[in-house]
Amino acid sequence: MNTPSLKTFNSSDNCRSAQPLRHAKAVTFEDTPLRLEQGGELSPVTVCYETYGQLSPNADNAVLVCHALSGDSHVAKHDPEDAPGWWDVMIGPGRPIDTNTVYVICANVLGGCRGTTGPGSAHPKTGKPYGRSFPTVTIGDMVKLEKMLVDHLGISQLKAVVGGSMGGQQALCWGVLFPDMTAGVVALATAPRITNQSLAFDIVGRNAILHDPNFADGQYYDATTSPDTGLAIARMIGHVTYLSREAMTEKFDVNRYQPRDVATGFEKHFSVGSYLGYQGDKFVERFDANSYLALTKAVDLYDLGDSHDELVETFSASDSRWLVISFTSDWLYPPFQSQEIVRALMAAGKRVSYCNVASSAGHDAFLLEQDLPIYGELVRGFLGSMETGCCAAGQAPAEAPIGSRTIFRPDRLDHDRLIGLVPEGASVLDLGCGAGGLLCRLMRRPHGKLVGVDLSEEAIVASVANGHNVVHADLNKHLSQFSDGQFDYVVLSQTLQAVRDVEGLLAEMLRIGKHAVVSFPNFAYWPLRKMLAEEGKAPESSGLLRHKWYDTPNVRFFSIADFEDLCQEKDIVIRESVYLDTEAKSDVVDDPNLNADLAIFVLGGAPLAPAS
Amino acid sequence: MNTPSLKTFNSSDNCRSAQPLRHAKAVTFEDTPLRLEQGGELSPVTVCYETYGQLSPNADNAVLVCHALSGDSHVAKHDPEDAPGWWDVMIGPGRPIDTNTVYVICANVLGGCRGTTGPGSAHPKTGKPYGRSFPTVTIGDMVKLEKMLVDHLGISQLKAVVGGSMGGQQALCWGVLFPDMTAGVVALATAPRITNQSLAFDIVGRNAILHDPNFADGQYYDATTSPDTGLAIARMIGHVTYLSREAMTEKFDVNRYQPRDVATGFEKHFSVGSYLGYQGDKFVERFDANSYLALTKAVDLYDLGDSHDELVETFSASDSRWLVISFTSDWLYPPFQSQEIVRALMAAGKRVSYCNVASSAGHDAFLLEQDLPIYGELVRGFLGSMETGCCAAGQAPAEAPIGSRTIFRPDRLDHDRLIGLVPEGASVLDLGCGAGGLLCRLMRRPHGKLVGVDLSEEAIVASVANGHNVVHADLNKHLSQFSDGQFDYVVLSQTLQAVRDVEGLLAEMLRIGKHAVVSFPNFAYWPLRKMLAEEGKAPESSGLLRHKWYDTPNVRFFSIADFEDLCQEKDIVIRESVYLDTEAKSDVVDDPNLNADLAIFVLGGAPLAPAS
Repeated sequence: MNTPSLKTFNSSDNCRSAQPLRHAKAVTFEDTPLRLEQGGELSPVTVCYETYGQLSPNADNAVLVCHALSGDSHVAKHDPEDAPGWWDVMIGPGRPIDTNTVYVICANVLGGCRGTTGPGSAHPKTGKPYGRSFPTVTIGDMVKLEKMLVDHLGISQLKAVVGGSMGGQQALCWGVLFPDMTAGVVALATAPRITNQSLAFDIVGRNAILHDPNFADGQYYDATTSPDTGLAIARMIGHVTYLSREAMTEKFDVNRYQPRDVATGFEKHFSVGSYLGYQGDKFVERFDANSYLALTKAVDLYDLGDSHDELVETFSASDSRWLVISFTSDWLYPPFQSQEIVRALMAAGKRVSYCNVASSAGHDAFLLEQDLPIYGELVRGFLGSMETGCCAAGQAPAEAPIGSRTIFRPDRLDHDRLIGLVPEGASVLDLGCGAGGLLCRLMRRPHGKLVGVDLSEEAIVASVANGHNVVHADLNKHLSQFSDGQFDYVVLSQTLQAVRDVEGLLAEMLRIGKHAVVSFPNFAYWPLRKMLAEEGKAPESSGLLRHKWYDTPNVRFFSIADFEDLCQEKDIVIRESVYLDTEAKSDVVDDPNLNADLAIFVLGGAPLAPAS
Repeated sequence: MNTPSLKTFNSSDNCRSAQPLRHAKAVTFEDTPLRLEQGGELSPVTVCYETYGQLSPNADNAVLVCHALSGDSHVAKHDPEDAPGWWDVMIGPGRPIDTNTVYVICANVLGGCRGTTGPGSAHPKTGKPYGRSFPTVTIGDMVKLEKMLVDHLGISQLKAVVGGSMGGQQALCWGVLFPDMTAGVVALATAPRITNQSLAFDIVGRNAILHDPNFADGQYYDATTSPDTGLAIARMIGHVTYLSREAMTEKFDVNRYQPRDVATGFEKHFSVGSYLGYQGDKFVERFDANSYLALTKAVDLYDLGDSHDELVETFSASDSRWLVISFTSDWLYPPFQSQEIVRALMAAGKRVSYCNVASSAGHDAFLLEQDLPIYGELVRGFLGSMETGCCAAGQAPAEAPIGSRTIFRPDRLDHDRLIGLVPEGASVLDLGCGAGGLLCRLMRRPHGKLVGVDLSEEAIVASVANGHNVVHADLNKHLSQFSDGQFDYVVLSQTLQAVRDVEGLLAEMLRIGKHAVVSFPNFAYWPLRKMLAEEGKAPESSGLLRHKWYDTPNVRFFSIADFEDLCQEKDIVIRESVYLDTEAKSDVVDDPNLNADLAIFVLGGAPLAPAS
């Protein structure tokens, strides 16, 4: 790309104390004002960005990466000698976002201080830095400027927009504002709007800056002093919120009273103090206080909706595929907020996958190598399946289940039968989907929406790579991600006996689905009866009951007759039932409660609450 | 008390901008210097305090209440017209700390700004406020000054020392430094040393104060300005850490964009911002920045020990009874830290009870009415049982168990038999102790240490009131509170079938106890066999298996023979076994696996790791 409006970025142009970003390019839109959501406009407006890899001739391999609060356009090294990028673990040749195949664009955000127009830029009328006169910008405004850049680069649709934290907010926004241009959205460690706890920390940080006497109402650019103390205090608060308690214990507890030998004017009696002082000091060297105010305010004003209904409305126009990733120890953008996003996307009928990565690294997890085997592979699989399509090779993945303590038996006779019980065209939610074996088999026929649920991170990674929409959830908790009557069929295969709240889960299935299909082992199968009756021991068999009594995933033991009693008691209509002898691989007609080792029931007809 | 050294406190004496505390009394020790742990001494030293109720003629009903960071001596109202105290919910006539029967003392801490010697007090040599020349004080120093006060009041032993947060640190310290003077310790929402996360927030707050230009190296007392911004910023950070995320959502989410109409110079775009600004401004009116520095530093330096072994050593000299209370949503002093205290006290052989109160209120929970029915009643029961002794009326409490979904049957035939299996003199840990029925029965005989464990808060409250030492814990998790070989007998009555990790729990019991005693229902009891064999239904009976298969606390189904197999497989020695027909209330000799509905096993002999 070498258009007239492109130039090499020179940091001294418009950004106080910025380090030169060697590979940055800048484009200035002289004649296209950027109209701002909170009023006013910016013109001219410059955006500074870096690119990696090659844009394909069809311009269909571009991935826009959005940075978080203190990031910039330098998302990765351009070559081995280059300065480290902030997401080198994720982006580069062979990395999850593989620059051998995709074209990566990363722009410094509007309001930032790395070349893109921000409070440190010259006001076109006065020629002096905007300072406090820089208008309020929003995440939506950032995205609109990014869109101008993408247009400028001649790309009509992005393969994906990817980002974490404030970058995740931008990614979500892309899916909402420019659905046609956004084939995929990958949002990590983010939220529809931040919690009041997180908001509070931002506010305290801004108060520290605004009340720093050197802030001088934001016009400190020509002064000998600047609000370094306030900005450092804000940065220190931020740093605590980026780490988990566990991570801080790990990092600082051994040398609690041995501060690092750093030159800082801040308290360094404790190890963690020397770290914070150092981080605070280092930050003021590379960041502009006015930009910090502008960007945190944008983060704080971001609000896709308070209620579930508002979020559903927000996402209603989307046509993207979505991948949402949270991290268990992230308390700045806690997982429940990602789950709200997923729930709304599901309710809006969108294609979404979700994983809550078990991590001790806190909010920063999305930047670190520690959990890359999960979150990185999720992104790799997501991008890959956008090219290859679903169940790529036309083959179902190995049906051997994920994880070592699985309850499933290796042969899945019940899958053959389940498929016969679910009519073509139906939408299906598969609870306990594993790598997506049943979903792939269903996909060979015409079907409505197909979605999986699993508790295993590895299953989610595999399913996403297989092109499925899958949600990471625990069947022992409520399936509140799903709305009433959202699916024609909800399938639970060989798992009911491993769920503690059987009644609750059945109710959830019949709330979410018009029909529920469950298969389970029959505890009154004659060899099991015989074992207890004659040997006086808890039945074990080669199938689902092959585990030792003290070490089995199964916690509920019931027969076909017991299940039928429960259905009767709870007014659950049994529409169809299949009784199998899985050893003989045959149907059982005669006294199934004695002769079948596995039963499949199609349920439905319980009064459904009206769909919300 | 009306000694010559006592005077009515006049706030203008030595505390910048303090409100007069109408009922405060002060005593000045002119000739007894207070030697400080970090070096130096203070002389003279004044302590300002309030008292409630009447000291008994034997001076044996005194309870010392220790305040937290921003508290003072005014712990409760002295009369209905009095200004509110900071712990009115807890202290007063009929309250959990009942001033009809106990004599409450609450002193402003050393380093504070409510009359007790602190940085705002006049330096004896210069006559000017100490300011930054005030020496570093520790929680131990605070406690030593409190001890001088208690001596002065003619009290040789305190019935209890009670406090939360920094007050809890003091309470723990009393038990460590003055074991003979401290009959009981009640420590709420506290820790052996604070986490690095909490430490970090304190450090950032101190940095904000120290770098406020108006701090003037601490000598702002005569200046027209003071470091109000820094102190307000510190207070705002503190406030966020005192609340839980849930509590903040509850408080601020509805009116997120409608700030309260408060006069503050701080940002008030958001509702939570107006709250923080108001709290910051209000705090600087009543608190001295130098005191804030001194007290947070004392909190941060407090360190009873890093490792478990160090903590055990710390508590080794204690002779107190201990009650430790944490709150689930407290992230400033998280529950696991209280559990470390309990674990060390247990390992040191001390008498301790513990409850982790399920609360949404965060660290502040211990100050609020919300969870008073649990934490208040725990304190009431603890203080009460110190007078009445254990199992007060000489009667076992009702053995009807706590909670509605109990697994226990109402008649406890197994208790009769268990008592026969545990020799007199033995120390016993009763897992699933309920209100303490078995413990009370054991107490009628001579015994070593008797301790209970239960998952129910109500059970802990009842057991504590019955004078038992009980620990709130989940048998489905590790019992790491207890050390290797700590008890002669560990008893688990009628609960093994409700535990998922049977093998793990048995291993824990045999790690902690020289012997383990378990009772459980026999799944191969003949009527149960018959039910499955003939009716083809999951066995239900009138006893432990009376629950419906889909709604039972039982998750493991096994027979006497199964259990014996497990013991053989895991090299667990069966020392004794008792087989019962609980319907007939008789022992079973003939084919117990067929004819007994309940079995009791005494286990032991698995190689024990040496006691640590």
